[in-house]
Amino acid sequence: MAALETVASYAAHGGTQGVYRHRSAATGTDMTFAVFLPAQAQTQPAPVLTYLSGLTCTHANVLEKGEYRRAAAEHGIIVVCPDTSPRGEGVADDPAWDLGQGAGFYLNATQDPWRQHFRMESYIADELPAVVAEAFPTLPEAAGIFGHSMGGHGALTLALRHPGHYRSCSAFAPIVAPGQVPWGQKAFAAYLGEDRAEWRRHDAVALIEDGARFAEFLVDVGEADSFLERELRPQLLADACAEAEIPLTLRMQPGYDHSYYFISTFMADQIAWHAERLRV
Amino acid sequence: MAALETVASYAAHGGTQGVYRHRSAATGTDMTFAVFLPAQAQTQPAPVLTYLSGLTCTHANVLEKGEYRRAAAEHGIIVVCPDTSPRGEGVADDPAWDLGQGAGFYLNATQDPWRQHFRMESYIADELPAVVAEAFPTLPEAAGIFGHSMGGHGALTLALRHPGHYRSCSAFAPIVAPGQVPWGQKAFAAYLGEDRAEWRRHDAVALIEDGARFAEFLVDVGEADSFLERELRPQLLADACAEAEIPLTLRMQPGYDHSYYFISTFMADQIAWHAERLRV
Repeated sequence: MAALETVASYAAHGGTQGVYRHRSAATGTDMTFAVFLPAQAQTQPAPVLTYLSGLTCTHANVLEKGEYRRAAAEHGIIVVCPDTSPRGEGVADDPAWDLGQGAGFYLNATQDPWRQHFRMESYIADELPAVVAEAFPTLPEAAGIFGHSMGGHGALTLALRHPGHYRSCSAFAPIVAPGQVPWGQKAFAAYLGEDRAEWRRHDAVALIEDGARFAEFLVDVGEADSFLERELRPQLLADACAEAEIPLTLRMQPGYDHSYYFISTFMADQIAWHAERLRV
Repeated sequence: MAALETVASYAAHGGTQGVYRHRSAATGTDMTFAVFLPAQAQTQPAPVLTYLSGLTCTHANVLEKGEYRRAAAEHGIIVVCPDTSPRGEGVADDPAWDLGQGAGFYLNATQDPWRQHFRMESYIADELPAVVAEAFPTLPEAAGIFGHSMGGHGALTLALRHPGHYRSCSAFAPIVAPGQVPWGQKAFAAYLGEDRAEWRRHDAVALIEDGARFAEFLVDVGEADSFLERELRPQLLADACAEAEIPLTLRMQPGYDHSYYFISTFMADQIAWHAERLRV
């Protein structure tokens, strides 16, 4: 396994907030990610909760604005915050903010020019957990995943597509049915081509309709989210979960928008929810 | 009083995080500041705690990275976050990051070219509280002040210079004796000229030595702060407070640096401390 370079390290909330860089075999690029290590992890292995960010973000947005460290410290959980795509010279990109770098959609692209580096599903589901487990005292089989918007899509679909990988899954304002909304349709057409059957394998609602299952989901969505009706459509997830008898706690939050002011408000609550499910 | 323009407004932690702009009579410029209004303030007046930021910051740094809303919501406290200087075309500046715009040092400059707009003491101590009280349901005589680095200097000196204005005062990594350290000496020479007697009126340690008093202070400083010995020198404050019999709780925090990772770690604790003292 390639070496992990420490980009930065800060004392924070009794633990350590680090930023690391490594050469990813999955993407063929350098990848940067953040890890919060709570004080408890100095003496015993700790559960790992991975946060997937939304469109245009890097690891740094949630690092600075997510307010996750206080709750992670309280519950003794390692929080891992990866980037949203491969980046750099030689990596395909698009002038639009919702395609290419910063918009990897947590899947392995099958189409040119994306398929060479845009392999975020392999990176998040397989490579990064191994890299983290080698460098930090993680508790085996106590992994959770959550995320925001495109990252909520990532959390839901990776949990549904990788049985046994994650014990808990939640989301803030997720794109629940990318195959049915503009952001997802644009990205899936580019990354996966026009085969709609392939799209369904990366769409949380379609995955559930097609038989994928997960223990339960927690989802917070702001009622004042400007993307609510056009891109998020949480009712589609509620309907699919009801039909499949997957317990879903869907909390519509009055007045909240799509920003980190919304995420940070409910961050501690979601982390506490994961902590209950990740305890040994 | 000039109108208050709402730049942005977000639901956050059960209350409202706003950003506002107004024409300041004190500075003769437009000034931007942030206000967090907790849910409790919808039904009754609430205490006001003003946070003064450090060198290079605007209102936005603590807004995004300070993690103050959760504790402010819990305790029902309005948090006001002003800018660190006047800004804009026609406002004097310096190429250095520690002088001019972003480095107002919370005093009224007496020297050219600064004296025209750099009147941050009048702005913070007098004008802004009146603007806030007119626009928001503030509790009279329940005002606290705190800040970081240059803003810690601001909090300490304004509390010492304006008896009756503030009921509580704390600081993160404050510049306690600007007249004895490089950042302060450079700024004071520019803003106040070479009269060292004038410098002493804007230096917390000198103010205490010269007879100014305040009920008590709480100060957190990181032991790994790279500015500790050269710019902060908290022992000078400890010595002055001991001599003057001002209760000072000085907490040296092992491993912490000068960043918002340090500030956000102890933010909730400092807000709880102010809340105890600002209760009616």
